[in-house]
Amino acid sequence: MSWYKQDGLTGIAFSSRIRLARNLRDIPFPERLSEDQAGEVAATVSRALHEIEAGKKWHDLDLQSIDPLHRQALVERHLVSREMTADRPHATLLVRDDERLGVLVNEEDHMRIQALRPGSDLSEAYAEAADLADRLEAKLPIAVSPRYGYLTSCPTNVGTGMRASVMLHLPALGRADLLPKLVQTLSRSGFTLRGYNGEGSRSEGDLYQISNQVTLGRAENDIIRDLNDITEQVIASENKSREAFQEADPVALGDRVGRAYGILANAQAISYEEAMQLMSALREGIELGVRTGPDMETINGILLQIGPASVQWINGREMDARSRDVARADVIKKVLKEKHIHD
Amino acid sequence: MSWYKQDGLTGIAFSSRIRLARNLRDIPFPERLSEDQAGEVAATVSRALHEIEAGKKWHDLDLQSIDPLHRQALVERHLVSREMTADRPHATLLVRDDERLGVLVNEEDHMRIQALRPGSDLSEAYAEAADLADRLEAKLPIAVSPRYGYLTSCPTNVGTGMRASVMLHLPALGRADLLPKLVQTLSRSGFTLRGYNGEGSRSEGDLYQISNQVTLGRAENDIIRDLNDITEQVIASENKSREAFQEADPVALGDRVGRAYGILANAQAISYEEAMQLMSALREGIELGVRTGPDMETINGILLQIGPASVQWINGREMDARSRDVARADVIKKVLKEKHIHD
Repeated sequence: MSWYKQDGLTGIAFSSRIRLARNLRDIPFPERLSEDQAGEVAATVSRALHEIEAGKKWHDLDLQSIDPLHRQALVERHLVSREMTADRPHATLLVRDDERLGVLVNEEDHMRIQALRPGSDLSEAYAEAADLADRLEAKLPIAVSPRYGYLTSCPTNVGTGMRASVMLHLPALGRADLLPKLVQTLSRSGFTLRGYNGEGSRSEGDLYQISNQVTLGRAENDIIRDLNDITEQVIASENKSREAFQEADPVALGDRVGRAYGILANAQAISYEEAMQLMSALREGIELGVRTGPDMETINGILLQIGPASVQWINGREMDARSRDVARADVIKKVLKEKHIHD
Repeated sequence: MSWYKQDGLTGIAFSSRIRLARNLRDIPFPERLSEDQAGEVAATVSRALHEIEAGKKWHDLDLQSIDPLHRQALVERHLVSREMTADRPHATLLVRDDERLGVLVNEEDHMRIQALRPGSDLSEAYAEAADLADRLEAKLPIAVSPRYGYLTSCPTNVGTGMRASVMLHLPALGRADLLPKLVQTLSRSGFTLRGYNGEGSRSEGDLYQISNQVTLGRAENDIIRDLNDITEQVIASENKSREAFQEADPVALGDRVGRAYGILANAQAISYEEAMQLMSALREGIELGVRTGPDMETINGILLQIGPASVQWINGREMDARSRDVARADVIKKVLKEKHIHD
């Protein structure tokens, strides 16, 4: 079960994510832990979690002991941060079966509680993350300062310890070259914009994540309200830009969508970058009501299977770039074909 | 009925063409004819042709009086030379119903007898053209010099008056950048290479025409034998080059063919140049046994409908470039869809 399967996603907002950083009191931050102490932290958090979530299905993944391809595939699926692939002893992912709720243990902080939801749904994601954080806090001694709030390994996370982010699909703003201006505007309000895989400039698949920079001195709900407002404004800009393109050339969108579908359904080798770009076109087509090819759930399903590591992990072996391109094309064709039959 | 429909074309040789220049004795060449005299020539040739071909279906097209789009579409189908679109009084196309045999009247010469056949079949094309020329010569006084042979408007055609040409599909030689060298080699043997629409460099659709330069001092059969030899050599080079590409990357061809089919079957706007290039990929796929998409007859059928003028002529109106691109995509999708149903 994957988080994206549970809602019909048809909007510009791809997903919402809340991450809360929490640390155990009187234990050094992960950077300064011995391997034994790190193992202790992982065991303690895991035990607490399974107690408070008794009856629910959670997975424990020790990231240092699993296949490196699997670990990298989890990064590509955004379930694990890139930092977790470094040599961090007892770095562990605790993740609920629906992938919507997880705890990263022994990353930069002892715990990073993550809630992920499809679409624009920060409040609900926050409610879920905060609820889990509260229940963990009732079981475990947490490092809090009366003056600063939650203490974290990196000073930029002190206070709420919260990072809120929304992932938006912004192909028209990209085409209109309006993203650099958006980055500036966001920065003035204390928010940043990054690509789907952390890139700064044009993102693979035109997916961009907006998140808060400030964690200290502002209440969680204020941050979320601001980010919701900004999300609405950015979506409005994107829509306006799409309308301008549509007006300038009414055929272009349908043409782009048709070609993207034609290539994805027929290529025998395809790079990650090209596949992401073509899926962006399909996504835009669905968002604007062009009925060609697969639905959003199918596109999102493909998205999570075509990263370089994911392709290798699915195929159970290491592959050179060309073999990955062939395997990627196979996965895409297979999914589109199945979908086509069901339609 | 079109000439390409009658044979299963599956090779690198697309078509063979013989053109015989003939002029009426004691009448000035077309350049120096009055309008009345040109009308006389057209009437004389047409009358003679219909007498000797009594019972067969021939069309008479006065190129100055038909729709200019129709005239241009005939050029795109290679039934009429580009010169015929100039302001030539009583320029007339006499063409047999199967389009394999025709007479251009009042082009550069009074008569240019043309025989066209699919594949590599110069001898048969020559037999058909020469037979018609002989029978016309039996009816009409023809300008022949005992010393030089047939007299023509341009000295480069004097002698046999024959231009023999084969159209070959040479995508691999193009990709390997071996065409400039081929042009040089051919030139030394008295042959030239031009693109499908007369271009010098990379041709639309990778189709190239090889034809003789010399018409004087060599017998027709010698010219044809030489051109057949050259055709065989060029086909061998093309095949060798294809094998090298196939060896270097066994996936590339199938990938190119799949993508070409996917785009052609799904684009909503497409330029002539892009469509020709994609059809070249489909053609190569068929030639090399990759079973994706339409057969060669379907591809050739599309080829004859997508030139800028042909698209407008089929739609019965003048169109700007973007509208042509949309109409072209529609034609291609329609043909591919029909074909898909019949398969």
